[in-house]
Amino acid sequence: THPTSASLPSPSFSVDTETLQNQIDELATFSDVPAPAVTRVLYSDKDVLARSYIKKLMEKAGLSIREDAVGNIFGRWNGKDTSLAAVATGSHIDAIPFSGKYDGVVGVLGALEAINVLKRSGFQPRRSLEVIMFTSEEPTRFGISCLGSRLMAGIEELADALKGTVDGQNISFFDAAKSAGYNLNHEDLKNVFVKKDHYSAFIELHIEQGPILEEEGLPIGIVTAIAAPASIKVEFEGNGGHAGAVLMPARNDAGLAAAELALAVEKHVLESGSIDTVGTVGIIELHPGAINSIPSKSHIEIDTRDIDEKRRNNVVEKVHQSAVSIAEKRRVRLSKFQIINQDPPALSAESIIRAMTIAAEKLNLSHKLMISRAYHDSLFMARISPMGMIFIPCNKGYSHKPEEYASMEDIANGVKVLALTLAKLSVD
Amino acid sequence: THPTSASLPSPSFSVDTETLQNQIDELATFSDVPAPAVTRVLYSDKDVLARSYIKKLMEKAGLSIREDAVGNIFGRWNGKDTSLAAVATGSHIDAIPFSGKYDGVVGVLGALEAINVLKRSGFQPRRSLEVIMFTSEEPTRFGISCLGSRLMAGIEELADALKGTVDGQNISFFDAAKSAGYNLNHEDLKNVFVKKDHYSAFIELHIEQGPILEEEGLPIGIVTAIAAPASIKVEFEGNGGHAGAVLMPARNDAGLAAAELALAVEKHVLESGSIDTVGTVGIIELHPGAINSIPSKSHIEIDTRDIDEKRRNNVVEKVHQSAVSIAEKRRVRLSKFQIINQDPPALSAESIIRAMTIAAEKLNLSHKLMISRAYHDSLFMARISPMGMIFIPCNKGYSHKPEEYASMEDIANGVKVLALTLAKLSVD
Ligand SMILES: [Mn+2]
Ligand SMILES: [Mn+2]
Ligand SMILES: [Mn+2]
Ligand SMILES: [Mn+2]
Repeated sequence: THPTSASLPSPSFSVDTETLQNQIDELATFSDVPAPAVTRVLYSDKDVLARSYIKKLMEKAGLSIREDAVGNIFGRWNGKDTSLAAVATGSHIDAIPFSGKYDGVVGVLGALEAINVLKRSGFQPRRSLEVIMFTSEEPTRFGISCLGSRLMAGIEELADALKGTVDGQNISFFDAAKSAGYNLNHEDLKNVFVKKDHYSAFIELHIEQGPILEEEGLPIGIVTAIAAPASIKVEFEGNGGHAGAVLMPARNDAGLAAAELALAVEKHVLESGSIDTVGTVGIIELHPGAINSIPSKSHIEIDTRDIDEKRRNNVVEKVHQSAVSIAEKRRVRLSKFQIINQDPPALSAESIIRAMTIAAEKLNLSHKLMISRAYHDSLFMARISPMGMIFIPCNKGYSHKPEEYASMEDIANGVKVLALTLAKLSVD
Repeated sequence: THPTSASLPSPSFSVDTETLQNQIDELATFSDVPAPAVTRVLYSDKDVLARSYIKKLMEKAGLSIREDAVGNIFGRWNGKDTSLAAVATGSHIDAIPFSGKYDGVVGVLGALEAINVLKRSGFQPRRSLEVIMFTSEEPTRFGISCLGSRLMAGIEELADALKGTVDGQNISFFDAAKSAGYNLNHEDLKNVFVKKDHYSAFIELHIEQGPILEEEGLPIGIVTAIAAPASIKVEFEGNGGHAGAVLMPARNDAGLAAAELALAVEKHVLESGSIDTVGTVGIIELHPGAINSIPSKSHIEIDTRDIDEKRRNNVVEKVHQSAVSIAEKRRVRLSKFQIINQDPPALSAESIIRAMTIAAEKLNLSHKLMISRAYHDSLFMARISPMGMIFIPCNKGYSHKPEEYASMEDIANGVKVLALTLAKLSVD
């Protein structure tokens, strides 16, 4: 029997904005750099403290807590019918170096507040509701984005790759996990995989990380698709040598090869013919890294995305051709051209888009359908569950830097839309 | 009264090559990275150990040891007439990250062996002979090359600049010195200055750091001039942002500005019209340095040199123009364009060139007059003393990397030429 809409909470329920802001501020103090910047890297001491903080809040909300082998954290509110697939929501709390305090965090603390809102309203879910804090959405430490959700989606290749994965300090994934209290071995990774019927829906609340909602004065964005990212690591090697003694014709400078490739990435992206193609060289490292030494080695990391997978793969291919021809021209060795990931885009489920739209309408919040140009754990959750995302505006579209900001009014609106959507999906 | 050549040692004296090779190998073990690479940075624990090692060898050679406020180390063999200006020789033992074990070291351990050779031969100097180990020839830690010899040359601006100088970890010069046992204050820096009549000659033995001697099969190079270096630090700043969310037209990428400037340096150097102009971007650092973050800040360090000061200054000027126009075109801020040093070239003294040439001829060693494209403490010693340099071949001209190598035969030849030159100049 289907419940009537009478069992849904009234859209007049209120968000405890003061507590939520305090939580956002407190979580931001678990950081390796001074405020307003935030750095919180996977399995670091600060990450461990932040995880405890989230578990404490889950406990306070009366959720039953489960943690998987890599530290994805689940807080469940059992529904009336625990035999049904649950409705899940969540995001991440790790933060890249010198970033801000809203990316991911709004979708974890906001999800917990959505649960609290529903509890205060007297609502009783039919399907269980679950808040998920994903491990390592950001690729900072091991170069692997969405590590937790990729594993949940059952990507065997990742489980295998993790056996040989080390961070910049040559610490293995397993040693790093152990130091954070996750004493796992390779076999345990399979237990992170989640079956396709485990969730009936997954919704992520997130700041837009772009300027559109703010510019158009809209409080809510309803995501219909997530752009598809590809990440590439490139290394060039040359002979290096003394900056004074080796004359220009005798050089094969790995640093200049890197510089040329960075500019080639920009060129190929701009040539794609679409505003939706983006490409970034966020990392250039030169070895030995001395003012009086010709670089003998360079390491470049490239990120390119598009809502059109073919067009993005075309950029990857052109970047590869450039890397080869730059190496040839400069007589350096292209010692690495590694495509770390090359993911297909994800589409939101029609049913969830509908539920989010109805929720926004009931709350009298103007909204628009839009594309997520940043990617999220939702991209991988979409492989095992119908998926949807709610965007809220953020200051000038800033993200991944200390100036990242979302107003509490906008966050509260997002929490309300999320709460109503969860409620609706939990009784469907 | 002038002594006759009878008081000079016989050119048949022998170098203790086994001991010298052992010393080179032992000194290389004071390193922060595994062999064959060497990293020995100013005032680090390994630098302190290496300094003790040098002082021990000076003591063993019967030299009287003096150390100045910044750690230039002097080992003196008193001559018959201590009222005369001394003849000095020496080099450095600090090593840039991941470099080799011969740069500088040959001129310190080789100088000590030259003294031992003279002592074993029964020679008695008239002028005192002094071996100098200079502090921080390499700019690794504080971005200042030839720190010790610049101060000895009495450069007041450097003494003042050191008040505000910090390393990459924000440790001040004075704190770093203190941690190595040099507890000095700003006033003490003036005591490092050396008067113009303190030395009658300074000679540095050094590996060529270029391929010429090896290619031409010559054991000895006699340096007539040292090319003039300029070092520049540049910083660009942009808005940064999320690698997925910020569309290409909205970007002002500080990393791409750095890449473009690096290629502009190469272009301006190649346009100089002379093979003697070189330019290097050895350092590019991107902030925040994450694959999914548009660089909001970039830091570039540039080294450019020439034997013609005007031509080199012209490159510096063009690099500056490029930095300004790149910043304008890419709408980034050129937040720093700092010329760290812009030194004039140095000429060797005719009298010392003559003494070195006579020594090589007496030893039946073929030789050529040549230019030093790398710079050395000799560049600054030339400001307070007649100066000369002896080059020996090194493997393929390699330097500043682990493959740097000079054969013991070539080193021993260099030591002999140095010993005869010192002897000659000490009785002149
Ligand atoms: Mn992020
Ligand atoms: Mn995020
Ligand atoms: Mn050097
Ligand atoms: Mn040197």
